[in-house]
Amino acid sequence: MADFTFFTNPMSRGQIVRWALHEVGADYATELVDWEAKPAGFLEANPMGKVPTLVHHDGDHIHVVTECPAICHYLAETHAAADLLPRQHEKADYYRLMFFAAGPVEQAVTSRAMGWSVEDPQKEGMLGFGNYDRAIDTFETLLSGRDYVCGDRFTMADVYVGSQVDWGISFGSIPTRKVFEDYANRLRERPAYKEAKAIDMKLIAEKQG
Amino acid sequence: MADFTFFTNPMSRGQIVRWALHEVGADYATELVDWEAKPAGFLEANPMGKVPTLVHHDGDHIHVVTECPAICHYLAETHAAADLLPRQHEKADYYRLMFFAAGPVEQAVTSRAMGWSVEDPQKEGMLGFGNYDRAIDTFETLLSGRDYVCGDRFTMADVYVGSQVDWGISFGSIPTRKVFEDYANRLRERPAYKEAKAIDMKLIAEKQG
Repeated sequence: MADFTFFTNPMSRGQIVRWALHEVGADYATELVDWEAKPAGFLEANPMGKVPTLVHHDGDHIHVVTECPAICHYLAETHAAADLLPRQHEKADYYRLMFFAAGPVEQAVTSRAMGWSVEDPQKEGMLGFGNYDRAIDTFETLLSGRDYVCGDRFTMADVYVGSQVDWGISFGSIPTRKVFEDYANRLRERPAYKEAKAIDMKLIAEKQG
Repeated sequence: MADFTFFTNPMSRGQIVRWALHEVGADYATELVDWEAKPAGFLEANPMGKVPTLVHHDGDHIHVVTECPAICHYLAETHAAADLLPRQHEKADYYRLMFFAAGPVEQAVTSRAMGWSVEDPQKEGMLGFGNYDRAIDTFETLLSGRDYVCGDRFTMADVYVGSQVDWGISFGSIPTRKVFEDYANRLRERPAYKEAKAIDMKLIAEKQG
Protein backbone atom coordinates (compact mmCIF):
# COMPACT_ATOMS: atom_id res chain seq x y z
CA MET A 1 0.00 0.00 0.00
CA ALA A 2 1.22 3.49 -0.80
CA ASP A 3 2.16 5.75 2.13
CA PHE A 4 -0.48 8.30 1.13
CA THR A 5 -3.99 8.04 -0.29
CA PHE A 6 -4.81 11.18 -2.21
CA PHE A 7 -8.55 11.84 -2.65
CA THR A 8 -8.95 14.35 -5.42
CA ASN A 9 -10.77 15.49 -8.49
CA PRO A 10 -8.59 16.73 -11.34
CA MET A 11 -10.75 19.85 -11.73
CA SER A 12 -10.13 21.06 -8.20
CA ARG A 13 -7.50 22.48 -5.91
CA GLY A 14 -6.31 18.92 -5.67
CA GLN A 15 -3.93 20.12 -8.41
CA ILE A 16 -2.08 22.11 -5.77
CA VAL A 17 -1.65 19.06 -3.57
CA ARG A 18 -0.51 16.88 -6.47
CA TRP A 19 2.19 19.44 -7.16
CA ALA A 20 3.24 19.23 -3.49
CA LEU A 21 3.25 15.42 -3.61
CA HIS A 22 5.63 15.56 -6.60
CA GLU A 23 7.87 18.21 -5.01
CA VAL A 24 8.60 15.87 -2.09
CA GLY A 25 8.57 12.68 -4.16
CA ALA A 26 5.80 11.15 -2.03
CA ASP A 27 4.67 7.54 -2.44
CA TYR A 28 0.97 8.08 -3.13
CA ALA A 29 -2.09 6.48 -4.71
CA THR A 30 -4.78 8.65 -6.27
CA GLU A 31 -8.46 8.02 -5.52
CA LEU A 32 -10.66 10.06 -7.82
CA VAL A 33 -13.75 11.50 -6.17
CA ASP A 34 -16.81 12.06 -8.30
CA TRP A 35 -18.98 14.98 -7.09
CA GLU A 36 -22.12 12.90 -7.64
CA ALA A 37 -21.16 9.73 -5.74
CA LYS A 38 -18.63 10.35 -2.98
CA PRO A 39 -17.07 7.15 -1.60
CA ALA A 40 -17.88 6.37 2.07
CA GLY A 41 -14.21 6.10 3.09
CA PHE A 42 -13.74 9.59 1.79
CA LEU A 43 -16.61 11.11 3.77
CA GLU A 44 -15.31 9.40 6.88
CA ALA A 45 -11.90 10.99 6.35
CA ASN A 46 -13.38 14.41 5.62
CA PRO A 47 -16.94 15.02 6.84
CA MET A 48 -17.04 18.24 4.79
CA GLY A 49 -16.73 16.05 1.70
CA LYS A 50 -14.14 18.37 0.18
CA VAL A 51 -11.25 17.41 -2.03
CA PRO A 52 -8.33 17.39 -1.74
CA THR A 53 -8.07 15.13 1.30
CA LEU A 54 -4.87 13.28 2.15
CA VAL A 55 -4.71 10.09 4.22
CA HIS A 56 -1.32 9.16 5.63
CA HIS A 57 -0.75 5.49 6.47
CA ASP A 58 1.99 6.02 9.03
CA GLY A 59 2.83 2.60 10.45
CA ASP A 60 0.06 1.74 12.91
CA HIS A 61 -1.37 5.24 12.62
CA ILE A 62 -3.73 6.68 10.07
CA HIS A 63 -3.68 10.46 9.78
CA VAL A 64 -6.12 12.56 7.79
CA VAL A 65 -5.18 16.00 6.55
CA THR A 66 -7.47 18.47 4.81
CA GLU A 67 -7.08 22.13 3.74
CA CYS A 68 -4.60 22.71 0.90
CA PRO A 69 -2.04 24.71 2.89
CA ALA A 70 -2.12 22.18 5.75
CA ILE A 71 -1.56 19.28 3.35
CA CYS A 72 1.32 21.06 1.61
CA HIS A 73 3.03 21.84 4.89
CA TYR A 74 2.37 18.34 6.25
CA LEU A 75 4.08 16.84 3.21
CA ALA A 76 7.10 19.06 3.79
CA GLU A 77 7.18 17.94 7.44
CA THR A 78 6.97 14.24 6.57
CA HIS A 79 9.62 14.53 3.84
CA ALA A 80 12.33 16.53 5.56
CA ALA A 81 14.92 15.29 3.05
CA ALA A 82 13.19 17.32 0.34
CA ASP A 83 14.40 20.41 2.25
CA LEU A 84 11.24 22.41 1.67
CA LEU A 85 10.64 23.34 5.31
CA PRO A 86 11.69 26.83 6.36
CA ARG A 87 15.08 27.32 8.01
CA GLN A 88 15.49 29.56 11.07
CA HIS A 89 15.44 32.93 9.31
CA GLU A 90 12.81 31.85 6.78
CA LYS A 91 10.15 30.86 9.29
CA ALA A 92 8.58 34.30 9.76
CA ASP A 93 7.97 34.78 6.02
CA TYR A 94 6.95 31.18 5.50
CA TYR A 95 4.18 31.07 8.11
CA ARG A 96 3.13 34.67 7.59
CA LEU A 97 2.56 34.15 3.86
CA MET A 98 0.96 30.71 4.25
CA PHE A 99 -1.66 32.12 6.58
CA PHE A 100 -1.97 35.40 4.70
CA ALA A 101 -2.76 33.52 1.48
CA ALA A 102 -5.10 31.07 3.26
CA GLY A 103 -6.93 33.82 5.14
CA PRO A 104 -7.07 37.39 3.82
CA VAL A 105 -6.25 36.61 0.17
CA GLU A 106 -8.71 33.73 -0.01
CA GLN A 107 -11.43 35.80 1.64
CA ALA A 108 -10.78 38.84 -0.54
CA VAL A 109 -10.88 36.84 -3.75
CA THR A 110 -13.97 34.84 -2.73
CA SER A 111 -15.91 37.90 -1.59
CA ARG A 112 -15.20 39.65 -4.86
CA ALA A 113 -16.20 36.59 -6.91
CA MET A 114 -19.48 36.40 -4.99
CA GLY A 115 -20.16 40.08 -5.46
CA TRP A 116 -20.12 40.66 -1.71
CA SER A 117 -19.14 44.10 -0.52
CA VAL A 118 -19.33 46.26 2.54
CA GLU A 119 -20.80 49.75 2.35
CA ASP A 120 -20.41 50.60 6.01
CA PRO A 121 -16.78 51.45 6.96
CA GLN A 122 -17.50 50.38 10.55
CA LYS A 123 -18.30 46.91 9.29
CA GLU A 124 -15.18 46.82 7.14
CA GLY A 125 -13.14 46.93 10.32
CA MET A 126 -14.64 43.59 11.26
CA LEU A 127 -13.21 41.98 8.14
CA GLY A 128 -9.84 40.32 8.62
CA PHE A 129 -8.92 41.15 5.04
CA GLY A 130 -10.07 44.78 5.18
CA ASN A 131 -11.02 45.08 1.54
CA TYR A 132 -9.99 43.50 -1.75
CA ASP A 133 -7.60 46.25 -2.90
CA ARG A 134 -5.80 46.47 0.43
CA ALA A 135 -5.35 42.70 0.66
CA ILE A 136 -4.05 42.41 -2.91
CA ASP A 137 -1.72 45.41 -2.54
CA THR A 138 -0.30 43.90 0.64
CA PHE A 139 0.12 40.56 -1.10
CA GLU A 140 2.07 42.30 -3.89
CA THR A 141 4.26 44.13 -1.37
CA LEU A 142 5.05 40.89 0.48
CA LEU A 143 6.15 39.19 -2.76
CA SER A 144 8.13 42.14 -4.13
CA GLY A 145 11.92 42.20 -4.36
CA ARG A 146 12.31 38.46 -3.90
CA ASP A 147 12.07 35.34 -6.04
CA TYR A 148 10.21 33.21 -3.52
CA VAL A 149 8.20 33.55 -0.32
CA CYS A 150 11.32 33.09 1.82
CA GLY A 151 13.68 35.05 -0.43
CA ASP A 152 16.08 33.24 -2.75
CA ARG A 153 15.09 29.71 -1.92
CA PHE A 154 12.03 27.77 -3.03
CA THR A 155 10.12 26.24 -0.09
CA MET A 156 6.79 24.47 0.32
CA ALA A 157 5.16 27.84 1.00
CA ASP A 158 5.64 28.61 -2.69
CA VAL A 159 3.49 25.64 -3.71
CA TYR A 160 0.50 26.99 -1.83
CA VAL A 161 1.09 30.75 -2.00
CA GLY A 162 2.29 30.44 -5.59
CA SER A 163 -0.80 28.47 -6.56
CA GLN A 164 -3.01 31.23 -5.18
CA VAL A 165 -1.14 33.61 -7.49
CA ASP A 166 -1.02 31.21 -10.45
CA TRP A 167 -4.75 30.41 -10.25
CA GLY A 168 -5.65 33.98 -9.41
CA ILE A 169 -4.06 35.54 -12.47
CA SER A 170 -5.27 32.67 -14.67
CA PHE A 171 -8.90 33.12 -13.63
CA GLY A 172 -8.74 36.90 -13.32
CA SER A 173 -9.43 36.92 -9.59
CA ILE A 174 -6.02 38.51 -8.94
CA PRO A 175 -4.82 41.34 -11.20
CA THR A 176 -1.99 40.66 -13.66
CA ARG A 177 0.73 42.75 -12.08
CA LYS A 178 4.40 42.17 -12.92
CA VAL A 179 5.28 40.85 -9.45
CA PHE A 180 2.53 38.24 -9.63
CA GLU A 181 3.27 37.24 -13.24
CA ASP A 182 7.03 36.91 -12.77
CA TYR A 183 6.50 34.82 -9.66
CA ALA A 184 3.98 32.51 -11.36
CA ASN A 185 6.27 32.10 -14.37
CA ARG A 186 9.16 31.04 -12.14
CA LEU A 187 6.98 28.41 -10.48
CA ARG A 188 5.60 27.04 -13.76
CA GLU A 189 9.16 26.00 -14.67
CA ARG A 190 9.44 23.60 -11.74
CA PRO A 191 9.70 19.98 -12.95
CA ALA A 192 7.30 18.81 -10.21
CA TYR A 193 4.76 21.45 -11.27
CA LYS A 194 4.90 20.23 -14.87
CA GLU A 195 4.64 16.56 -13.91
CA ALA A 196 1.65 17.15 -11.66
CA LYS A 197 -0.18 19.37 -14.15
CA ALA A 198 0.37 16.81 -16.94
CA ILE A 199 -1.33 14.11 -14.84
CA ASP A 200 -4.35 16.26 -13.99
CA MET A 201 -4.69 17.61 -17.54
CA LYS A 202 -4.68 14.00 -18.83
CA LEU A 203 -7.35 12.99 -16.30
CA ILE A 204 -9.51 15.95 -17.31
CA ALA A 205 -9.11 15.12 -21.02
CA GLU A 206 -10.05 11.47 -20.39
CA LYS A 207 -13.16 12.49 -18.51
CA GLN A 208 -14.25 14.84 -21.24
CA GLY A 209 -13.18 12.56 -24.12
CA MET B 1 15.69 45.42 24.19
CA ALA B 2 13.09 42.68 24.45
CA ASP B 3 13.27 39.80 21.95
CA PHE B 4 9.82 40.62 20.60
CA THR B 5 7.93 43.85 19.94
CA PHE B 6 4.22 43.21 20.11
CA PHE B 7 2.07 45.78 18.29
CA THR B 8 -1.46 45.44 19.54
CA ASN B 9 -4.64 47.06 20.67
CA PRO B 10 -6.27 45.52 23.74
CA MET B 11 -9.65 45.44 21.99
CA SER B 12 -8.47 43.23 19.15
CA ARG B 13 -7.35 39.74 18.32
CA GLY B 14 -4.07 40.84 19.79
CA GLN B 15 -5.52 39.15 22.90
CA ILE B 16 -4.93 35.81 21.20
CA VAL B 17 -1.29 36.62 20.57
CA ARG B 18 -0.76 37.87 24.12
CA TRP B 19 -2.03 34.53 25.35
CA ALA B 20 0.47 32.77 23.03
CA LEU B 21 3.29 35.03 24.28
CA HIS B 22 2.51 34.02 27.86
CA GLU B 23 2.19 30.31 27.02
CA VAL B 24 5.79 30.26 25.76
CA GLY B 25 7.10 32.76 28.31
CA ALA B 26 8.34 35.13 25.62
CA ASP B 27 10.44 38.19 26.40
CA TYR B 28 8.26 40.89 24.82
CA ALA B 29 7.49 44.59 24.92
CA THR B 30 4.00 45.84 24.11
CA GLU B 31 3.48 48.77 21.73
CA LEU B 32 -0.11 49.95 21.80
CA VAL B 33 -1.49 50.97 18.43
CA ASP B 34 -4.19 53.57 18.33
CA TRP B 35 -6.58 53.17 15.35
CA GLU B 36 -6.48 56.92 14.73
CA ALA B 37 -2.72 57.48 14.66
CA LYS B 38 -0.77 54.42 13.64
CA PRO B 39 2.98 54.68 14.32
CA ALA B 40 5.23 54.67 11.20
CA GLY B 41 7.34 51.73 12.42
CA PHE B 42 4.17 49.74 12.68
CA LEU B 43 2.99 50.45 9.13
CA GLU B 44 6.43 49.56 7.85
CA ALA B 45 6.21 46.19 9.60
CA ASN B 46 2.69 45.53 8.39
CA PRO B 47 1.54 47.54 5.34
CA MET B 48 -2.04 46.33 5.98
CA GLY B 49 -1.91 48.26 9.23
CA LYS B 50 -3.48 45.41 11.13
CA VAL B 51 -2.85 44.41 14.71
CA PRO B 52 -1.57 42.13 16.05
CA THR B 53 1.86 42.35 14.43
CA LEU B 54 4.92 40.76 16.00
CA VAL B 55 8.50 41.89 15.37
CA HIS B 56 11.22 39.43 16.32
CA HIS B 57 14.67 40.89 17.04
CA ASP B 58 16.67 37.74 16.32
CA GLY B 59 20.31 38.69 16.63
CA ASP B 60 21.25 40.58 13.45
CA HIS B 61 17.89 39.71 11.90
CA ILE B 62 14.55 41.40 12.24
CA HIS B 63 11.56 39.26 11.40
CA VAL B 64 7.99 40.47 11.08
CA VAL B 65 5.07 38.12 11.54
CA THR B 66 1.42 38.93 10.98
CA GLU B 67 -1.78 36.80 10.98
CA CYS B 68 -2.78 35.43 14.39
CA PRO B 69 -2.30 31.74 13.58
CA ALA B 70 1.11 32.42 12.01
CA ILE B 71 2.25 34.39 15.05
CA CYS B 72 1.07 31.68 17.46
CA HIS B 73 2.87 28.97 15.51
CA TYR B 74 5.98 31.11 15.11
CA LEU B 75 6.15 31.58 18.88
CA ALA B 76 5.93 27.81 19.37
CA GLU B 77 8.75 27.35 16.84
CA THR B 78 11.00 29.91 18.48
CA HIS B 79 10.34 28.54 21.99
CA ALA B 80 10.75 24.80 21.47
CA ALA B 81 11.35 24.31 25.20
CA ALA B 82 7.70 25.22 25.85
CA ASP B 83 6.85 21.95 24.08
CA LEU B 84 3.82 23.36 22.27
CA LEU B 85 4.83 22.21 18.78
CA PRO B 86 3.13 19.06 17.49
CA ARG B 87 4.90 15.72 17.84
CA GLN B 88 4.98 13.22 14.96
CA HIS B 89 1.47 11.81 15.35
CA GLU B 90 -0.03 15.17 16.28
CA LYS B 91 1.03 17.03 13.15
CA ALA B 92 -1.92 16.08 10.95
CA ASP B 93 -4.50 17.36 13.46
CA TYR B 94 -2.42 20.39 14.37
CA TYR B 95 -1.99 21.78 10.87
CA ARG B 96 -5.42 20.64 9.67
CA LEU B 97 -7.19 22.47 12.48
CA MET B 98 -4.99 25.56 12.34
CA PHE B 99 -5.81 26.06 8.67
CA PHE B 100 -9.42 24.93 9.05
CA ALA B 101 -9.98 27.57 11.73
CA ALA B 102 -8.08 30.24 9.79
CA GLY B 103 -9.84 29.49 6.51
CA PRO B 104 -13.32 27.90 6.45
CA VAL B 105 -14.36 28.80 10.01
CA GLU B 106 -13.19 32.40 9.69
CA GLN B 107 -14.92 32.77 6.33
CA ALA B 108 -18.13 31.15 7.52
CA VAL B 109 -18.35 33.34 10.60
CA THR B 110 -17.46 36.53 8.73
CA SER B 111 -19.90 35.90 5.91
CA ARG B 112 -22.71 35.30 8.37
CA ALA B 113 -21.83 38.43 10.37
CA MET B 114 -21.90 40.46 7.15
CA GLY B 115 -25.23 38.98 6.11
CA TRP B 116 -23.66 37.52 2.96
CA SER B 117 -25.28 34.43 1.53
CA VAL B 118 -25.34 32.42 -1.65
CA GLU B 119 -28.65 31.57 -3.28
CA ASP B 120 -27.20 29.70 -6.23
CA PRO B 121 -25.98 26.16 -5.31
CA GLN B 122 -23.55 26.29 -8.25
CA LYS B 123 -21.88 29.28 -6.66
CA GLU B 124 -21.78 27.61 -3.25
CA GLY B 125 -19.39 25.04 -4.73
CA MET B 126 -16.93 27.88 -5.29
CA LEU B 127 -16.81 28.62 -1.59
CA GLY B 128 -14.03 26.89 0.27
CA PHE B 129 -16.19 26.76 3.39
CA GLY B 130 -19.33 25.48 1.63
CA ASN B 131 -21.85 27.08 3.91
CA TYR B 132 -22.00 28.17 7.55
CA ASP B 133 -23.79 25.11 8.91
CA ARG B 134 -21.53 22.65 7.17
CA ALA B 135 -18.37 24.43 8.32
CA ILE B 136 -19.56 24.65 11.95
CA ASP B 137 -20.76 21.04 12.01
CA THR B 138 -17.39 19.90 10.68
CA PHE B 139 -15.63 22.05 13.26
CA GLU B 140 -17.68 20.38 15.99
CA THR B 141 -16.90 16.91 14.62
CA LEU B 142 -13.18 17.66 14.52
CA LEU B 143 -13.19 18.77 18.17
CA SER B 144 -15.40 15.94 19.45
CA GLY B 145 -14.15 13.09 21.62
CA ARG B 146 -10.92 14.84 22.57
CA ASP B 147 -9.77 17.45 25.06
CA TYR B 148 -7.51 19.37 22.70
CA VAL B 149 -6.83 19.77 18.98
CA CYS B 150 -4.18 17.05 19.07
CA GLY B 151 -5.98 14.76 21.54
CA ASP B 152 -4.93 14.68 25.20
CA ARG B 153 -2.18 17.24 25.04
CA PHE B 154 -2.45 21.03 24.86
CA THR B 155 -0.44 22.49 21.95
CA MET B 156 -0.14 25.92 20.38
CA ALA B 157 -2.95 25.00 17.98
CA ASP B 158 -5.32 25.28 20.95
CA VAL B 159 -4.41 28.92 21.48
CA TYR B 160 -5.56 29.87 18.00
CA VAL B 161 -8.29 27.28 17.35
CA GLY B 162 -9.51 27.60 20.93
CA SER B 163 -9.69 31.37 20.64
CA GLN B 164 -11.89 31.04 17.57
CA VAL B 165 -14.22 28.90 19.70
CA ASP B 166 -13.92 31.08 22.82
CA TRP B 167 -14.60 34.31 20.91
CA GLY B 168 -17.22 32.66 18.72
CA ILE B 169 -19.43 31.45 21.55
CA SER B 170 -18.88 34.69 23.51
CA PHE B 171 -20.02 36.87 20.60
CA GLY B 172 -22.67 34.46 19.34
CA SER B 173 -20.97 33.90 16.00
CA ILE B 174 -20.54 30.19 16.83
CA PRO B 175 -23.42 28.29 18.43
CA THR B 176 -23.16 27.28 22.11
CA ARG B 177 -22.88 23.52 21.69
CA LYS B 178 -21.50 21.31 24.46
CA VAL B 179 -18.33 20.39 22.54
CA PHE B 180 -17.48 24.07 22.00
CA GLU B 181 -18.36 25.14 25.56
CA ASP B 182 -16.44 22.34 27.27
CA TYR B 183 -13.41 23.06 25.13
CA ALA B 184 -13.51 26.80 25.82
CA ASN B 185 -13.93 26.18 29.56
CA ARG B 186 -10.83 23.95 29.63
CA LEU B 187 -8.81 26.64 27.92
CA ARG B 188 -10.01 29.45 30.19
CA GLU B 189 -8.37 27.62 33.10
CA ARG B 190 -4.88 27.93 31.61
CA PRO B 191 -2.69 30.21 33.79
CA ALA B 192 -1.27 31.91 30.67
CA TYR B 193 -4.79 32.61 29.40
CA LYS B 194 -5.72 34.26 32.68
CA GLU B 195 -2.51 36.31 32.87
CA ALA B 196 -2.90 37.58 29.31
CA LYS B 197 -6.60 38.42 29.67
CA ALA B 198 -5.93 40.29 32.91
CA ILE B 199 -3.40 42.55 31.14
CA ASP B 200 -5.72 43.35 28.24
CA MET B 201 -8.75 43.87 30.48
CA LYS B 202 -6.71 46.32 32.56
CA LEU B 203 -5.60 48.21 29.43
CA ILE B 204 -9.19 48.42 28.23
CA ALA B 205 -10.36 49.68 31.62
CA GLU B 206 -7.62 52.34 31.72
CA LYS B 207 -8.58 53.55 28.26
CA GLN B 208 -12.23 53.83 29.17
CA GLY B 209 -11.62 55.16 32.66
